[in-house]
Amino acid sequence: MEEQKEKISKMIGKQSILFLNPPYILAGSSIAGKKEGEGPLGSFFDQIEEDPMFGGTSWEDAESRLMKRAAEFVIKKAGLKSEDIRYLIGGDLLGQLIATSFGIADLNIPVFGIFGACSTMGESMALGAIIVDGGYADRVISLTSSHFAGTEKQFRFPLAYGNQRPLSASWTVTGSGAVIIGKDKPASKAEKNDGDNYGDNYDNNGSIRIKGITVGKIVDYGLKDSLNMGACMAPAAYNTISRNLKDLNVLPNYYDKIITGDLGYVGKDILIDLLKQDGFDISGNHMDCGIEIFDKESQDTHSGGSGCACSAITLTGYIFKKLLRHEWTRVLFVPTGALLSQVSYNEGNSVPGIAHAVILEIC
Amino acid sequence: MEEQKEKISKMIGKQSILFLNPPYILAGSSIAGKKEGEGPLGSFFDQIEEDPMFGGTSWEDAESRLMKRAAEFVIKKAGLKSEDIRYLIGGDLLGQLIATSFGIADLNIPVFGIFGACSTMGESMALGAIIVDGGYADRVISLTSSHFAGTEKQFRFPLAYGNQRPLSASWTVTGSGAVIIGKDKPASKAEKNDGDNYGDNYDNNGSIRIKGITVGKIVDYGLKDSLNMGACMAPAAYNTISRNLKDLNVLPNYYDKIITGDLGYVGKDILIDLLKQDGFDISGNHMDCGIEIFDKESQDTHSGGSGCACSAITLTGYIFKKLLRHEWTRVLFVPTGALLSQVSYNEGNSVPGIAHAVILEIC
Repeated sequence: MEEQKEKISKMIGKQSILFLNPPYILAGSSIAGKKEGEGPLGSFFDQIEEDPMFGGTSWEDAESRLMKRAAEFVIKKAGLKSEDIRYLIGGDLLGQLIATSFGIADLNIPVFGIFGACSTMGESMALGAIIVDGGYADRVISLTSSHFAGTEKQFRFPLAYGNQRPLSASWTVTGSGAVIIGKDKPASKAEKNDGDNYGDNYDNNGSIRIKGITVGKIVDYGLKDSLNMGACMAPAAYNTISRNLKDLNVLPNYYDKIITGDLGYVGKDILIDLLKQDGFDISGNHMDCGIEIFDKESQDTHSGGSGCACSAITLTGYIFKKLLRHEWTRVLFVPTGALLSQVSYNEGNSVPGIAHAVILEIC
Repeated sequence: MEEQKEKISKMIGKQSILFLNPPYILAGSSIAGKKEGEGPLGSFFDQIEEDPMFGGTSWEDAESRLMKRAAEFVIKKAGLKSEDIRYLIGGDLLGQLIATSFGIADLNIPVFGIFGACSTMGESMALGAIIVDGGYADRVISLTSSHFAGTEKQFRFPLAYGNQRPLSASWTVTGSGAVIIGKDKPASKAEKNDGDNYGDNYDNNGSIRIKGITVGKIVDYGLKDSLNMGACMAPAAYNTISRNLKDLNVLPNYYDKIITGDLGYVGKDILIDLLKQDGFDISGNHMDCGIEIFDKESQDTHSGGSGCACSAITLTGYIFKKLLRHEWTRVLFVPTGALLSQVSYNEGNSVPGIAHAVILEIC
C-alpha cells in the first residue's frame, strides 16, 4: 500500500509529474558557433568554435561532430567515462535524426532517439528525469543540437540562394547542449580532488535538481507561416505553462523565471497575452532564450534565435550558472517546438507547436 | 533503504530493465493496408483498408489518418476515452515525424515524440513501460505507423519512376499498430459487461505483461546499401539480443520465440550466424515479422516486409493472439531500425542499425 500510494503521488494534475527524489544535474556542456559566441551570452559558453564545419565535410557531418563534442565534454566535466552513462536520450532537427545517430554512435551508450523539434531539450530532460527518478538508470545524458546551415537547407532555402528573411523569422542557433542527470548528489570538488576545473561548480554552492516536469500537447491554431514560428509555437507554450501552474496550483511568481525556448519577439508578446486570459501575468518574470542569445541591434537576427540548441546552450551555459550563483532559485524551463517538415510546409499544412516544461531548483 | 534497494534491482546487467510490477497490455490495435491484408497474417488484423490514401489527399496525410485510426480504435477496444490516457509515445519514418504530429494532435493527449526508425514500436513500448511501472502514468499509448508510398517517396524513388527493386530490398508495410499499456490488470469481459466485443480478449485467459526491456545501441558495420537493410540492421539485432540473454543470464530457449522486426531473409541468416559467435543458437525459435507478413512466392516482396508498422501490426495482430491462446508463453520482441535518411544516403554514409527488445509474457 505504501508503495502504491507513493506511485500515485508522482502524477500531479493532468499533465505534470513531481519527482519524489528529484534527480541531480551532474554537469552541463555548451558548445556554440561563432555567431552565438559573439552574442550577449558568448562568455557563458564552454566552447566557441570558429569553423562552421566543425572539421566535417557537410553541414550534417558538422552537426554530428558538434553534438559528439558536447556529449564527450559533459562526460569529462562530470569526471565520468562513457560507460558510466546507462542511457542517452537525444535528438535533433534533421530528418530521421541523422545528426544524433552519426554523432553519438561512437559513445557506445544505449540510445532513446526522440523528436520534439526545438522542444527536444525539454523532452530529453523530462524522459531522463523519469528514467533516473524511477530507478532505471543511475546516470543518463540528455542532449540535442542544431546548426544554422543544416536547418536552412532542411526547412527553408539553400544559403546560396540568398533569400531575404522577413522580420518575423528567427535565426537557427548553431550549437549543442548536453546534461548528465543522475540519482546521487554530485561529489564536491574537494571530495573529488581530481585537479580538474572546467569552470563550473555543480556542488559546493548547492546542486541543481529536476523537481518536476509538464509534458506538452500538440497545439495547432492553424498558422501556416514557417517564417513566423514564434507565433506558431506561442499557443503550445501557453498551454504547457498554464497547465503547469494549474497542476501545481501555483502563481507565476512561484518561479524566479519562466523561460521559453525560441518564441522570439513576436511569440513572446502572444504568449503573455494568452496567459492573461487565464489570469496569469508572466510579463515580470518571463525570459525567452531566443531573445537573449543574439543582440537585436547588431546581429541582424530579426525575431531572435531558434533551433534545438537555442534553449539547450542557454540552459547549460547561462541558466545553470544563474542557479548555481543563487541569483535564481527556481525556474521553469520550457523549450518550444514547431512541428513542421519541408514536406508538410510544401503541402500547405499548418505548423503545430509543442512545449515541454522542466522545473529546475537549486538546493 | 528499502526504497533504495528496490530501485537498484530494476537495472539488470548493462542495458536491460526488469519491471517490479510488469505493466499490462490493456489492448492492441492493428490497421493494415490492402496488400498486407492479402498476406499470410491478413486474417489477424483488426481492419484492412482498401484505399491506399485512407481518404486523405497525400501519402503523408494518408499515414496520419492511418495512425489516428489505430489510436482511436485501441482506445475503443480498451473501453476507454482519450482523456483516460495520460501520455502518448509515438513516432514514424517521415522527416520530423509529420505522420504522428498531424495524426494524433486531435486526441489531445500529451506526447513524447520518438524516432527509432523501424525499431520505433520497441522504443515506444520500452518508454511506455518505464513510465507506467515507475508510477508516472496509469495508462499510456505506444504506437507507430508506416506507409509504403510515403516511405518510397521519403527514402528511395518516386513510385511513378518504376525503379526495379533488387532481391535484397524489402517492402515497407502500410499499417499502424497501437497498444495501451496500463498499471492495472484489465477488467475481465464479464466485469465490464459493456456489450462490446471487438474480437480480442485481453483478460479471461490471462493478461499480457511487459516483463522487461533491453535498450539498444547504435551499431554500424559500415554497410551502405539502403536496399539491403536487413544486412544493415542484423548487427544491431545481434547486439541487443545477445545483451538481453547475457543481462538476464538465460539461453535462447528461455523464450518461446525471439521475434525480430524486419530483417527479412538476408538479415535473418546474418543474425543467426552472428549469435552463434556468442554461443547462442536461435535458429529453432527465431521469427522475423518481415518474413511472416508477406507471402514470398505470390506477393513479390523480395526480402520481406519492413517499416515501423511491420513489427507493430504483427505484434498487435498476430503475436498478441498467440500469447492469449497460450501457444506462446514468453517472447522477446525485437523491432529493428535502419538509421538512414535520404540525405545521409546521398552523402555516402553508412546505414547504422538499432534494435530495442521488449520481453512479453502471458500470465
